[in-house]
Amino acid sequence: MNTEIIKSRVRAISRELKKSEIHCLIITKSANVTYVTGFLGEDSWTLIINGRSFLVTDSRYTEQAQNECPVCTIIERHEPMANAIANVIKKYKSVEKISVENSTSIAEFGLIKKALKTKVNTVGGVIEKIRMSKDESEITATKKAAAIATKALANTLPNIKPGMTESEVAGMLDFEIRKLGSTNSFETIVAFGPNASIAHHQPTLRKLKKNDTILIDFGAKYKGYCSDITRCFIIGKPDTFYQRVYDVVEKAQQAAIRNVKAGITIKELDSIARDIINLSDLPVYGHGTGHGLGIEIHESPFLNPQAKGPLQVGQIITIEPGVYIPNVLGIRIEDDCLVTKTSCEILTRRCPHKPLLQ
Amino acid sequence: MNTEIIKSRVRAISRELKKSEIHCLIITKSANVTYVTGFLGEDSWTLIINGRSFLVTDSRYTEQAQNECPVCTIIERHEPMANAIANVIKKYKSVEKISVENSTSIAEFGLIKKALKTKVNTVGGVIEKIRMSKDESEITATKKAAAIATKALANTLPNIKPGMTESEVAGMLDFEIRKLGSTNSFETIVAFGPNASIAHHQPTLRKLKKNDTILIDFGAKYKGYCSDITRCFIIGKPDTFYQRVYDVVEKAQQAAIRNVKAGITIKELDSIARDIINLSDLPVYGHGTGHGLGIEIHESPFLNPQAKGPLQVGQIITIEPGVYIPNVLGIRIEDDCLVTKTSCEILTRRCPHKPLLQ
Repeated sequence: MNTEIIKSRVRAISRELKKSEIHCLIITKSANVTYVTGFLGEDSWTLIINGRSFLVTDSRYTEQAQNECPVCTIIERHEPMANAIANVIKKYKSVEKISVENSTSIAEFGLIKKALKTKVNTVGGVIEKIRMSKDESEITATKKAAAIATKALANTLPNIKPGMTESEVAGMLDFEIRKLGSTNSFETIVAFGPNASIAHHQPTLRKLKKNDTILIDFGAKYKGYCSDITRCFIIGKPDTFYQRVYDVVEKAQQAAIRNVKAGITIKELDSIARDIINLSDLPVYGHGTGHGLGIEIHESPFLNPQAKGPLQVGQIITIEPGVYIPNVLGIRIEDDCLVTKTSCEILTRRCPHKPLLQ
Repeated sequence: MNTEIIKSRVRAISRELKKSEIHCLIITKSANVTYVTGFLGEDSWTLIINGRSFLVTDSRYTEQAQNECPVCTIIERHEPMANAIANVIKKYKSVEKISVENSTSIAEFGLIKKALKTKVNTVGGVIEKIRMSKDESEITATKKAAAIATKALANTLPNIKPGMTESEVAGMLDFEIRKLGSTNSFETIVAFGPNASIAHHQPTLRKLKKNDTILIDFGAKYKGYCSDITRCFIIGKPDTFYQRVYDVVEKAQQAAIRNVKAGITIKELDSIARDIINLSDLPVYGHGTGHGLGIEIHESPFLNPQAKGPLQVGQIITIEPGVYIPNVLGIRIEDDCLVTKTSCEILTRRCPHKPLLQ
């Protein structure tokens, strides 16, 4: 990870902490640890004290941390995590106000308070707020994650044949991602026919038939950054109703994407896709129209009717309306968009988009 | 999921709650939700009130929940989770003492208290304690998960050739798991040569050489239950030092497995493997000797020098000592064991164990 980028992140967080007079922030959330240190492993916490950063990890990760973290001080712990961080903090006599992320569990918070023997506050969203706008290195990594996913799907499509199972098609796609040196950003969803009405369907041994439909929702990870794509395909002859619904979902998705730009309220953007489906007398999806994308597969901003505030330059969001009719069909189309001042850049625009296969 | 098994779990938890005079338990931990309801999706919470169970989910998961949950009342929420559960609890006037799992985040706990407008306590480990001893359906599922992993590795080994990347070998293995209708229980680790000294190495584009070594740590999932296996292989000619270390690790692992039985203190079992490596003048691993295995890939009991208490009948644990020498080698051997009254059943004993390939 680039030293200057990590340094600038630590500075940005330290500035925020200073505003709230927080002398020490205890970071327990894995995605935030990654953002602040570059570390891609697990089970490790980060401290920010007086503008300095620390990664407290264990022997399983020491070597990995040495390779990945250019700025922070790496501490290999040999005692429970709460005691290990308390021992670092205690060395800094000037530290009075200590805060822990409010994504921390109640149990861990209890152990931290016990180990520190002092008052500890909680704070929410400090780093998530900074993470919402992506820097150049993050945009580059997400573009690469999108390109890998795109290539993997393009390599997979010609090999999908009737008789294959959902699980096998998911496996083929995942293998292509691995061959490109990447991993999944989440567990691949492959759903044939009506199985697609379950938005988060887990692939089964259900076989692909002639004149069947396929929904694939998947993504690749590059240097810790996620892509997230959904495509729907028809094998053989299209069904008239399916084709009609597909066209409505595509129209809703395209309309939302056309309206993505800094300044539009998230609520309004969400309603653009939702209204088109509603006006077509089709059931409106219960999930959000999209979500932020980055180190986490789902992160701020969340695009739903309750969302507050506008989109901002540098956010990367998914746009993914859908229609779900149990026992009949499920259709969702999803792309990843980088929000710009006047519109957006579709990072996944090259991903195969032909609904008809063969 | 079997109705009677789920009912008996709800009863067992209700008995525990009664002892602590808890009228309502709010379950937020995904693995515990699965255990209590059979639901395999995400983002859903469970309530236990007066012996009744509820799953509070959203539209993405309603159909899945209907298929998977034979006992609980399924509630599709259209408001924030904390409000949704508060609205269920408020219908039960007799509910006075409410507890939430202490694995819940501080932020969510705050929202729950706000929505309920009443005192809410926290409680830890109620369900985890019950989950430690596996029932027949869990043992059957874990055996199947181990059998799938075993078959997948057996199918993969003959196809590993010099020139392939770590990522490609991981992909081949994952594909075999998918072809068997299963998914990974965690992200597959494949490490060639000295890369294996990083215990949780992420596969790279490093290519397999002639006379190289391979560490593979992986598992399959069946009906929500995990298997977890590590094997080390030598391609071509064995290196004398590698072979010596391998023999020590194998000896340590076998000695620990021979001593697994209900009643042995976990601390003692941990030290058996550790001492053999120490007496051979090799660096002792920094991780635990093993861990519980079930719905979570790592769950209680954790086998380490700080562990308290004895092993119990029905626990499923891994035994996985290792030796790690940065820039030289990493060797770990891991099997899954069902603890019995007098010894253990090795669930992964059929998994290929030949260190020499070709």
